[in-house]
Parts: sequence; structure tokens; C-alpha cells
Amino acid sequence: MKAVIMAGGGGTRLFPISRKCMPKQFLGIDRESSLLEETIRRCRSFANEEDILVVTNERYRQHVENELAAAEANGASLVLEPVARNTAPAVALAAKFAKDKLGAEDEEVIFVSTSDHIIRPVETFKAAVGLAAKVAEKGKFVTFGVRPTYPETGFGYIELGGESGGAYKTVSFKEKPDIDTAKYYLKQGNYLWNSGMFAFRLGDFFRELSEYAPEIYRLTLGNYEEMASAFVNMPDISIDYAVAEHTKAGVTLPLPCYWNDVGSWDAIYDVLEKDEYGNALKGDVISVDSKRNLVYGKKRLIATVGLEDVLVVETDDVILVAGRGQSQKVKELVAELKEKGRVETEIFTEEAHGE
Amino acid sequence: MKAVIMAGGGGTRLFPISRKCMPKQFLGIDRESSLLEETIRRCRSFANEEDILVVTNERYRQHVENELAAAEANGASLVLEPVARNTAPAVALAAKFAKDKLGAEDEEVIFVSTSDHIIRPVETFKAAVGLAAKVAEKGKFVTFGVRPTYPETGFGYIELGGESGGAYKTVSFKEKPDIDTAKYYLKQGNYLWNSGMFAFRLGDFFRELSEYAPEIYRLTLGNYEEMASAFVNMPDISIDYAVAEHTKAGVTLPLPCYWNDVGSWDAIYDVLEKDEYGNALKGDVISVDSKRNLVYGKKRLIATVGLEDVLVVETDDVILVAGRGQSQKVKELVAELKEKGRVETEIFTEEAHGE
Repeated sequence: MKAVIMAGGGGTRLFPISRKCMPKQFLGIDRESSLLEETIRRCRSFANEEDILVVTNERYRQHVENELAAAEANGASLVLEPVARNTAPAVALAAKFAKDKLGAEDEEVIFVSTSDHIIRPVETFKAAVGLAAKVAEKGKFVTFGVRPTYPETGFGYIELGGESGGAYKTVSFKEKPDIDTAKYYLKQGNYLWNSGMFAFRLGDFFRELSEYAPEIYRLTLGNYEEMASAFVNMPDISIDYAVAEHTKAGVTLPLPCYWNDVGSWDAIYDVLEKDEYGNALKGDVISVDSKRNLVYGKKRLIATVGLEDVLVVETDDVILVAGRGQSQKVKELVAELKEKGRVETEIFTEEAHGE
Repeated sequence: MKAVIMAGGGGTRLFPISRKCMPKQFLGIDRESSLLEETIRRCRSFANEEDILVVTNERYRQHVENELAAAEANGASLVLEPVARNTAPAVALAAKFAKDKLGAEDEEVIFVSTSDHIIRPVETFKAAVGLAAKVAEKGKFVTFGVRPTYPETGFGYIELGGESGGAYKTVSFKEKPDIDTAKYYLKQGNYLWNSGMFAFRLGDFFRELSEYAPEIYRLTLGNYEEMASAFVNMPDISIDYAVAEHTKAGVTLPLPCYWNDVGSWDAIYDVLEKDEYGNALKGDVISVDSKRNLVYGKKRLIATVGLEDVLVVETDDVILVAGRGQSQKVKELVAELKEKGRVETEIFTEEAHGE
């Protein structure tokens, strides 16, 4: 089995700690080790390092190499996207690499993983991937779902049908719902969050591409180098849209462990340990008569006084203060910063100034 | 007329910008110029610089000299308290200085001013002091009161009696009230906030001291140097307690202008200009969907997102985040920092480290 880790994204939803120069897969959130390092270690629980492929781009090459070293997996392969497209072309490139460079057979199972989520514990995850591999070996296209714990409107959902051997028939993929629909999904019980992870046989994947995404498939027909040099012509489309929503072989496996997409500061509040007043405090923090805050400090003393339900994030050049439950709006902030031509969303000012 | 400015206090209610090494009279709040510089300039509107005395101590000597220079009043006198006592000994020392060193006569009026309040405009203040001088020349002990605009529990109040020539008989001084009492005072209309400013003739002051504060008066009987060297024996007592509450000549003048004691971050929110969403923003601030916040930035970008009714204050070494209406609790924070042996309330870390 091969494990393909997608590590080329450049999001800034966790601004100011995530920037274009340092997106969240390269950050530690509640631990020292980065999300990517943890992902590599998770994949190492069931795959040899030679069977791990990390898809990224030139910008993040050094970051990825550092994380591979940290995870003691230097033998893994780096697959460099020539330009940024979406997950379907990225996975196609990795599949082509596996086939051409690593000699993977059509029957070999490919597990596709995100690189910027928190998934624990490793043992439960490993067991789920093992089950997925068995199901994929029967020709199924496996999507990993997560049982919702609240009516989240920021995720896509998967509608489940009948169960067989721990896997559920994938009835349909649902776009990010409005709140009423999300509540309905939660109540129904047969709707899972789409985790963005997949498993399928290599040959099945190329066959599904040829059927549902011929404009991608066509570019996989030459050798790897030809595919890479034509990569600029790839459509910008996710693996969900290109294949998962269309395949007739789709099944969904519920991931029976802790999963957090760490997609916002509110999500980070959820994952961090709290004190008796519900405060999640990191760094040099003194808290007076304060409740249910997230303080994510770096260097300076951060003092909270009579403060409730607020997120405080400190970096060398930016301090973010947001209402809890409001952190989805960080993207509006990032948009405004870009519009103003400020460098903070791209890089850390300290780096820019060489400090 | 002499103007005595009390500038020896070392409060930290505006922590983290006010510290023991840099209390609030030396800070600019809504302007570049410090509160002390503004006070000196206000006093210059009716007094020659040679008639201005600034009472402070060795710790703040250089700060005061800087502010005198900034206010173009280098000819003013510095009166150095040998040890920190309270306002009654401080004013007695200044009065003794005026008499011994500046040749003030018993008939000369002494105006006593705080140094860390915002009072504007100068013209109205000047007129009020002019009226106070006339009243003091008739042997009255004048206290300046401020008409309350809300039921503040953090100030002392003055109960007014009958009016004569713009001055009201001082019926009694009231301690900081509870909220119900403060509301009663506000509704009654004849209770003013005690501004901590006074006017009286020099001879009357010493006579009142001999009557109501003999332990202070006794130490004024020698020459100035003898008084200074015995200053350590002074009781720790305010001019309010020592004289103002007891004198039979007490009258109160309402100060008919803007007055703000700048005693908390909430008070600073009140004095600063707001944008259309009620945000008072200073420094490099970007505000997304945020209302009624105070952001008092220094160097870094401070971004607020979906934030309401919060105070954010940045210095080089400390970030304070407090709920609005909660800033009285900053003193609890300062107490906790002291208990933990941290230097931040005493000094700026940058200064300590020589950065």
C-alpha cells in the first residue's frame, strides 16, 4: 500500500500563525511536532517510508524535507506539483509517480491523506486504514467520514446508505450546508463530515479518471515527466468533484477516532486543554477573573482581566483578538490585509526585515 | 498666585503603559504631550513659570525636568519629597518652599493641582481658577468639584450647600460610595466628584494645618531644610483628610469643563475618539466586524475580528486584554504580578534588558 500525503496547500485561516510562507501543515498546534510530521508518523504506522509520497510544491520543498527528517522518514518520495492545481491533479500526479517511479501495480492500494488535520490516536487510525485497504482491494472507492458532533456549516457531508463489512454505501456528497440543513444532518445520523481522505486501488483510480475526468486522465497517458511538464493544463478540480461524487464504487468508512480539521481558531480552542475556568492558555499568560478564552502566546506576557469568550493570538508582528465563534471571519481579515497590500499574510515581518 | 502641581504619584492602574518607573502623569494618553506637560501648560495660563512648583521625588526628577522643558517652563521649581508620604505633607512641603525659597506672603493664593488628569479647555479652566483665587482671597478653602455624569463608585463626592458668588458651601466630603448611594448622589444634583484640586491663601493653609493636622504643622516650624530632613516623620495622610474635611472655611467650585481622571482603561475609552462602530483605535489596527473596543497599539499590527466590548493594550513586553467595564480589576493583575515577583509592573522589560 502507498500513502499519498497532500501537503501543498497554502491556507491562512489560522492567521497570524499560518501564512503563505508557513501554512498550517508545517505548524505544531497543541504539540511541538507539526501536523505534517504527525501525519507522516501516522502513515508510517502502516506503510514503509519508501511507500510514502508527499505531494507539495517548490515553495514548501524545504519545509517538507525538514518534516520528513523530523518524522524519521527520509526515504519517502517528494512529488512536486509544477503549478498549484487542486487535489484531483495532485493525486493523479502522485499516482503516476507511484506507478512510474516506484513500480506500483494496478492492484496496489493508494491511501490519500490530508496533512493538516489532527487525528488521534494512531492505533485507531491504523485500524481504520487497514479496514479501508481490505475494502479497496475489492474494487471500492473509499472515502473516510467523521461522525458530526455539532451542526458544522463549514464542512461537506457524505450521505450514507447500507452497511457491509464496516463500510457504508456512499449515497451522495453534500456541499457545505446552511445551519438548518446541518442540524437536520446531525439529527438524521447517516450524514458524516467529509474528512478529505480516500483509499482505492491504483488501477481503479485511473479507470475512474478516464470515465469521469478525461481531461485529467488524458494528461496521465505519457510518462511521468511528460505529465509533469503538461501539468499547467490540468483543471482546477478537487478529487471529490472529479471522482468521488461520480464513482459507482463509492463506500464510506466512519473514522472512529478524534478528528479536528484545525480550520479555525475556534477549532484550536476545542483541541487545547482547558483550565477549570474553560481557558486554553499557551505561553506566558496571567488570567484574572477570565473565562472560556483562548490565549495563544509566543514571547510576551499576555494578561487577561475580566475577559470572556475571546481568542487572543500573538506572533512577532501581529496580535489577533477575536470573539469566540467568530474566527471564520479571519478570512475577511486576510482579504482586507491583501487588499491593503500588507505583507503580513504572506510572510512574517521579522523574516522580511531579516530580524 | 502660586501653582503647586503634585507629580510624585506612582500608580499602575493604567498598566501596562503605566509602571512604577513611568506613572501616568508622564504619559500622553490621547495626545503626544504628557498629562504633566498639559498640566504645566494649563497652570502657565494664569501663573508665571517662576510661580509654578512641581512636587515629586528623586525617582521622577528627570521625568519632571523633561516635562518642564517640553512645556517651556524651565523656570519652575522642583520640590523633592525626601520620602513618599501623601498629599497633605507634599502640599505642606511645597507651601514651605514657596514661603522660604520664593518669598511668598501669607496672603498669596496657592492653587494645588493634580498632574494626571485630563482637563479641557484651558480657557474655562483658567476662568475657574481665577474665580477660585478671588474666593480664596476672602479666606476660603476652595475645593474643585466636577459635576457627575454617571454614578461613579470610584471617586469621593462633595456635598454642596448654599451658593455665593459662584462658590458653594462645602457641607461634607463623602467616601467612595456604593452604587446605590452613587445613584442617589447623581439624582440629588448637589453632590460633585472631588477633583483633588484646591485653592487657599498660604497663611490660611498653615493655620488650618495647626488646627487640624498639628503633627504636620509642627514639622513646618523650622526652615525648609529642617522640614525636608524631618519629612520621614510625616503622617501618611491626604490633604482631604487632613484639612479639607475639617475646615470651617470650605467652599466648592464646580469645574465647568471636561474632566477625566484617566484612572482606568475604561476612562481612556471614554476620552478617545471613536469610529462609527464605537471603536477607539490607536496604532496599527485593522478591525473586522468589531464594535465598541479600545485598541491601544504600539508597534505591531493588531487585528480584531468579530470582537465586542474589549480593551486591548500593547506594549513592548506585555499585552493586556480586558473586558470593557472590567478595567478596575487591573489592580488585581498588578498585585498578582508583584506577588509572582515579576518585573513588569516596576519597569519595562526592554529597558531592563537594555534593548
